[in-house]
Amino acid sequence: MMPSLVERNLKPIITLTTDFGRQDGYVGAMQGVILSICPTASLVDISHQIPPQDIRRAAFVLYQAFSYYPTHTIHCVVVDPGVGSNRRAIAVRTSHGIFVGPDNGVFSLALAAEPVNVLEAVTLTNSDYQLPRVSATFHGRDVFAPAAAHLANGVPLSQFGPRAINLVRLELGPKIQNSEAQIIHVDHFGNLILNLTRHDIADPEQITFTIGPHVIKSLQATFADVAEGQLLAYTGSSRDHIEIAIRNGNAAQSLRLQVGDVIKVSVDG
Amino acid sequence: MMPSLVERNLKPIITLTTDFGRQDGYVGAMQGVILSICPTASLVDISHQIPPQDIRRAAFVLYQAFSYYPTHTIHCVVVDPGVGSNRRAIAVRTSHGIFVGPDNGVFSLALAAEPVNVLEAVTLTNSDYQLPRVSATFHGRDVFAPAAAHLANGVPLSQFGPRAINLVRLELGPKIQNSEAQIIHVDHFGNLILNLTRHDIADPEQITFTIGPHVIKSLQATFADVAEGQLLAYTGSSRDHIEIAIRNGNAAQSLRLQVGDVIKVSVDG
Amino acid sequence: MMPSLVERNLKPIITLTTDFGRQDGYVGAMQGVILSICPTASLVDISHQIPPQDIRRAAFVLYQAFSYYPTHTIHCVVVDPGVGSNRRAIAVRTSHGIFVGPDNGVFSLALAAEPVNVLEAVTLTNSDYQLPRVSATFHGRDVFAPAAAHLANGVPLSQFGPRAINLVRLELGPKIQNSEAQIIHVDHFGNLILNLTRHDIADPEQITFTIGPHVIKSLQATFADVAEGQLLAYTGSSRDHIEIAIRNGNAAQSLRLQVGDVIKVSVDG
Repeated sequence: MMPSLVERNLKPIITLTTDFGRQDGYVGAMQGVILSICPTASLVDISHQIPPQDIRRAAFVLYQAFSYYPTHTIHCVVVDPGVGSNRRAIAVRTSHGIFVGPDNGVFSLALAAEPVNVLEAVTLTNSDYQLPRVSATFHGRDVFAPAAAHLANGVPLSQFGPRAINLVRLELGPKIQNSEAQIIHVDHFGNLILNLTRHDIADPEQITFTIGPHVIKSLQATFADVAEGQLLAYTGSSRDHIEIAIRNGNAAQSLRLQVGDVIKVSVDG
Repeated sequence: MMPSLVERNLKPIITLTTDFGRQDGYVGAMQGVILSICPTASLVDISHQIPPQDIRRAAFVLYQAFSYYPTHTIHCVVVDPGVGSNRRAIAVRTSHGIFVGPDNGVFSLALAAEPVNVLEAVTLTNSDYQLPRVSATFHGRDVFAPAAAHLANGVPLSQFGPRAINLVRLELGPKIQNSEAQIIHVDHFGNLILNLTRHDIADPEQITFTIGPHVIKSLQATFADVAEGQLLAYTGSSRDHIEIAIRNGNAAQSLRLQVGDVIKVSVDG
Repeated sequence: MMPSLVERNLKPIITLTTDFGRQDGYVGAMQGVILSICPTASLVDISHQIPPQDIRRAAFVLYQAFSYYPTHTIHCVVVDPGVGSNRRAIAVRTSHGIFVGPDNGVFSLALAAEPVNVLEAVTLTNSDYQLPRVSATFHGRDVFAPAAAHLANGVPLSQFGPRAINLVRLELGPKIQNSEAQIIHVDHFGNLILNLTRHDIADPEQITFTIGPHVIKSLQATFADVAEGQLLAYTGSSRDHIEIAIRNGNAAQSLRLQVGDVIKVSVDG
């Protein structure tokens, strides 16, 4: 058994990522549950603006952020369209944080990221670590928030329930198929994040992206390398994924592109 | 006089609920005031996305969340269309938290909820616990934030001003009138929350909701009990109020319903 | 060298203001970086809803909020269209907080506000206080968050790089030109904040604002001084700037006005 955070003199950190928005009291209720069980926890919001039921986006947003946190951080993600069904509630301890939420793939990009090692995974079945009354529609408050808080208090993962195997994983698909790359995320600025990373590209001078009439040749270092309003491709800040953007503009809106759309790629210029 | 939080060795918690949004510096200013007066306070946002001047929604959002917090929590709610008029500024100490804000009904659902006991209420008139200059339009920053922070520091409620009686209460109206129930809240997912609770329904198998051509028979346990895109009624997570939803859809948008609209209810199937 | 926050026994506070929104993991990554370097920091969001690249709005929002924070607070502002170009990354120590971000004018309203004294400014060039790999597009995470956190840990400003002079300043323009005042901010409620302050007006009874067919005579104290739906002008809560609003309405929407538009002012009634 590892020493608890208290024994290691570390202030517990719990991050929250949900599709709850902030117009209701749902996130507020989860925070209250956590502070009632673990008053010393630092609560940090990653996002509550995941579009409803969008597991894939939650997985990507977590993947963008989790590795910048201390390794003792507990990441609680609640995008949970299967709440109340037989989908499992899980907690996964890794070399880079503990993940708590539904077993529907929300953790799969983080768990597959370098250099994360999965150490232990359990199904959250022990009602001692749930609220006394568990609703059928809000496990974020009744199951996941209490689990995160008890983990922050140092309760060992093995106490929460039996070992979980064969966790659900999202498949991102092949990187380039028929000379096309896929848009896997559109960010707040309208930048288009592709499933390609810098490591998939042999020579950044020799790559060309074609979007309808627009041709983007080679990778730039940053936005300021092109004129305002011009398209560019570059190695983005999200784990070296390639992005396409318009400097000081919104590429997704201007090009009418969205997640799942494909972009032509050729490597001989 | 009760021992202060400091004496009881409890870290103070202050929650914020406002209609200020986050595009301006208004919430930021309130947080700064609180941390200047009570540096040890844990600040928690419940919501800053209450629609402007929507006292009723603020009351409901607080009612969804407050009871999950430790009983020493201070809940500061600033939805205050009467700011600068003769509406009272109040603080109310209860068995389940201290409430600070305008006396316009924002606390009335929480104060009336089981098992809350109101212990003491005062009008916030003592200028020692306000900012040196009180504006006529932003009491959130100049009156309520300082009051919440001084309460967190252990200043007894009686120091803030004279006893307040006859607090403003919102009336939610009769539960079923002419065989109709009312929508009192539409959440982020478009789920319709009714003024009925599970306790108002004798037999969940024998209830029928009718919305135009749509008939919903009996209560389900959870979303997964119906097919995607289907309507269902169920006991929701907000203090057992009945909700109507579309699984993985948005009932309010699809049915074009909003707060205040009514839904036909019959209890004989 | 001033004693560090730790020596002064003050809990460090870091505020964040960005144009990143909360739909992505960008803010979450910054928070993780800060908590990894300075675990005791209190993280406070001022706003992440600055419109993309809107330096002027970021400057105003900071100006609304910063002075309500303790003077040891570190304000990190990342609205950074020039990221990766030769714009400077700076930190500025003042009598009312330390400011960290790009040198593009985001701090200029705060630095010029009474009674702020600028004590020391440096360019953030020392890579010891940056992430090991600095991306070309996300200095919020790789440069500014680490700088804020190391400052919170007590690292003296002079360690971060050479002295910076001639910081970029935004010009707000003349207060009244051709009998017109300018709208410099439209808030969440649609209130119109002018470049005039109360101190620019000799007699509040003798001022008249004209907006198309609408004439607003003299300043009111607060919203409740006019009937619902009526226009009024008043000394607002943002450093005594004059505002124009519709009581319980949205002046910007109703009058179709935005930042940069002008309003006729006459001082003889």
